[in-house]
Amino acid sequence: MFVETCIAPVNIALIKYWGKRDEDLILPINDSLSVTLSTDEMCAKTTIAASASFKCHLMWLNGEEVPFEENPRTMRCLKEIQRLAVAKGQLKFPIDWKLHIASRNNFPTAAGLASSAAGYACLVYTLAGLYGVENEELTAIARQGSGSACRSLHGGFVRWHSGKLKDGSDSIALPVEPAEHWPELHILILVVNDARKKTSSTKGMQRAVETSDLIAHRARFCVPERIAALVEAIRKRDFQKLAEITMRDSNQFHAIALDTYPPCVYMNDVSHAIAEFVHAYNNAAGEAKLAYTFDAGPNACLYLLKSDVSAAIAAIQTSFPNDMGHSVEYVKGIPVGCETKEKNGFNGNATLPIHDKNLLKYIIHTRIGKGPQRLDKDESLLDLTQGSPIET
Amino acid sequence: MFVETCIAPVNIALIKYWGKRDEDLILPINDSLSVTLSTDEMCAKTTIAASASFKCHLMWLNGEEVPFEENPRTMRCLKEIQRLAVAKGQLKFPIDWKLHIASRNNFPTAAGLASSAAGYACLVYTLAGLYGVENEELTAIARQGSGSACRSLHGGFVRWHSGKLKDGSDSIALPVEPAEHWPELHILILVVNDARKKTSSTKGMQRAVETSDLIAHRARFCVPERIAALVEAIRKRDFQKLAEITMRDSNQFHAIALDTYPPCVYMNDVSHAIAEFVHAYNNAAGEAKLAYTFDAGPNACLYLLKSDVSAAIAAIQTSFPNDMGHSVEYVKGIPVGCETKEKNGFNGNATLPIHDKNLLKYIIHTRIGKGPQRLDKDESLLDLTQGSPIET
Repeated sequence: MFVETCIAPVNIALIKYWGKRDEDLILPINDSLSVTLSTDEMCAKTTIAASASFKCHLMWLNGEEVPFEENPRTMRCLKEIQRLAVAKGQLKFPIDWKLHIASRNNFPTAAGLASSAAGYACLVYTLAGLYGVENEELTAIARQGSGSACRSLHGGFVRWHSGKLKDGSDSIALPVEPAEHWPELHILILVVNDARKKTSSTKGMQRAVETSDLIAHRARFCVPERIAALVEAIRKRDFQKLAEITMRDSNQFHAIALDTYPPCVYMNDVSHAIAEFVHAYNNAAGEAKLAYTFDAGPNACLYLLKSDVSAAIAAIQTSFPNDMGHSVEYVKGIPVGCETKEKNGFNGNATLPIHDKNLLKYIIHTRIGKGPQRLDKDESLLDLTQGSPIET
Repeated sequence: MFVETCIAPVNIALIKYWGKRDEDLILPINDSLSVTLSTDEMCAKTTIAASASFKCHLMWLNGEEVPFEENPRTMRCLKEIQRLAVAKGQLKFPIDWKLHIASRNNFPTAAGLASSAAGYACLVYTLAGLYGVENEELTAIARQGSGSACRSLHGGFVRWHSGKLKDGSDSIALPVEPAEHWPELHILILVVNDARKKTSSTKGMQRAVETSDLIAHRARFCVPERIAALVEAIRKRDFQKLAEITMRDSNQFHAIALDTYPPCVYMNDVSHAIAEFVHAYNNAAGEAKLAYTFDAGPNACLYLLKSDVSAAIAAIQTSFPNDMGHSVEYVKGIPVGCETKEKNGFNGNATLPIHDKNLLKYIIHTRIGKGPQRLDKDESLLDLTQGSPIET
C-alpha cells in the first residue's frame, strides 16, 4: 500500500473570481488575487492510499462516504495527475490501482467558508505526492476541481491568471509574494448567523455571466486596474491601499451579484452592519485599520495588521456584543494578547453603533500562511492496514 | 390677496435616475422613466397666497414652518417662475409681493416615499397657476427643486430626458403615454419597518458618480437600451417586458449604490425577501404577475394588473403574515374587492416562503394616474383672510 497525507490552506480573495468563460475547464473571465490563510487555524487534510487490494475508488469527507467515481470534478483531477505520472514514467505502483481517500476540514463547515478550495487543493497536492509528480501544472489541475482551489496551492499572496488559451493551460495560479513578505497581516473571520437559502457560487456566477449587464465591464476594465494596483500595494506593504482596493472589490462583486437576474444576494443586514462598522472604525482611527471582504455568503473576513488585533477585537465586542465574551469558543484561533491593547488603543469605541446581542456566531483569528504541506505517516486519516477511515 | 391651490402626484421610476452631471442645475447622467401614481391615494397639496400685506415669504410643510428664503432650491423655483411671468407680461399683481405657502402630503412621510418629488412638482405647478404661467419649461423648473419632481408634472408614463445642453434647458420631462393608455396598471406599495440611518439620495448619487467604476457604463450603455425597450413595452401594454426591465433596473440601481465607496445600502433583508417572493410568485404563476422596484429606501413598489390585485394581496398576506389582517389600516388605498379572487386565483401559495410576522408596516393599493390639478378655493390650506395655515 502506498500512502500520502497532506494539508492545504484556505484562501480568501482580495480581488474576486466571479464568472467563467468555460464552464467545463473552469476558466475565469478575470484574474483574481488572494491571501492564503495559515493552516494552523484552518486547513483541509487528506490521506490517499493506493493498493492492489482496493476494488474501487472510495472517498470519505469528514467521515462520511461521498461519491468519487461519479463526481466528474474529482475524477478529472485524478485523471490529470495520472496523465502527468505516466508521462514522467517511473511509476511507483500500477496506474490502475484503486484509491481510498479520506479528507477532513479542521474548521466548521457551518462557517460557510469556501472549504472546496482547500479541499480540492489538498486532493490534487496529495495525489501529486502519491504519484510522485512535482509539476507547475498542479494549479491548473486543482482549478478543474474548484476554480479558487488553484490559489490554495501557494502560500502568501497568490494571483490566479485567467489565461487566454482555449485549453486553459495558461489559467494558473502563481505566487505574488510569500507569507514571509508581510507576516504581520492577520485575519479575523466574523461568522454570521444566517438561515436563508442562497444560490450556489457555480449557479450564481453562471447566471451573472448570462444576465448581468455590468459583469463584462468589470472583468475587462475594473479588475485589471485593481490587480495592478494591488500587486503594487502588496510589494510596498501599503495597508491603506490594500484595504481600499479589497473593500471596493468586495462591494463590486456583490454589486454584480445583485445586477444578476434574478438577483443573487449573499450579504445580509448583519454583513452590511459589519461593513458599516469597518468604515466607522477606520473613520474614527483616521486611517484604514480594517478591510472587509465578503464571499458568496454573509460572513465577513477582515484583514488587519497584527498590532491592531487587540483593539479591533475590543471594538467588535463593543459594537456586536455577545453572551460568550472573550471565551475561546467565541474568539477561536490565535490567542488575542491583551499586552498590545494599551499601545495601540483605539479610542473611538464611543462613536461605534451598538447592535443587538449575538449577531455573530463566533470569530476566528488567523494570519497569512504557507501553501500545502506533506505530513508524516502517523498523521494518516486512513487505517494503514485496511485502508478505511480512522474514527476521530 | 391672490390664491392658488393645487395637487400633484407621486411618481415611481421604472428606470432609475441616479447620478447628476451638474449638481446645481440638477442635470442627470441618464434618462429615467416613471409611472405617475393616482392622486386619490397619494398626493402633495399646496396653497400659495400672494398679498401686499405679507412681510416675507413664509412656508409651512405639514403644518410646520420650514425655511423658504433660506432654501436655494425653493427660491430657484420661485425666481424661475417669476422670470417667466415677467417675460409673458400681464402680471395680475406686483412681482415683489411676498408669498405664503402651505403644503401637505396626504400620505405618511414615514412611508419613506419620495415626497420631495410630489412636493416640488406641486410648488412649481401652483406657482405657475398663481402667476398665470403656462409653459413647457415647468418641468425644467421643477427639476431644479428636486430632480425627479419634473416627472410628477405629467400623468401616466413619463420620461425625463437627460438632455445635452449645459444650461439644462433640454433636460425636461415629457409624457410617453397618458394614464388612459393602460388604466389597468395598479401599484402596491409595501412599507417596510426599518430603523437604519441611510445616506440621502443627493449624497448617495454624488458619491456614486465620484467613486463607482460601473455607473458610467450603466448611464452610457445600459439605460438607453432599457428606455427604448420599455417605451416599446408600454406602447404595446406588454406587462411581461415591463416587469423584467423594471426589476432589472431596480437591481442595477442598487448594484451601483453598492459599488459606491463607501457603499450605499438601501434595501434590507425584508426588501430582498420581497424581491425573492416576487420571483417565486412569478415562477409559480408561469409568467410575470408582479414587478418590484425599490427606490433609495427599503420599501417595495410592486406593479401589477388590476385583475391580479386580489390574488397578489392574498399571497403577500400568506408570505408576510401580520396581526392586522385585511383591515383598512393595513391595506390602505383602493379597496381590494374579493369578487375577482376566484377568477384569477393564484394557486401557488403553498410554494411561497412564510416569513416572520409583521415585517411589513402596511400596504398602499393605488394605480396609474393623472398629473397635477388645480383645486377650488374652498380646498385652500391657507386662511384666506389672514394667509396663515388652516389647522387640520
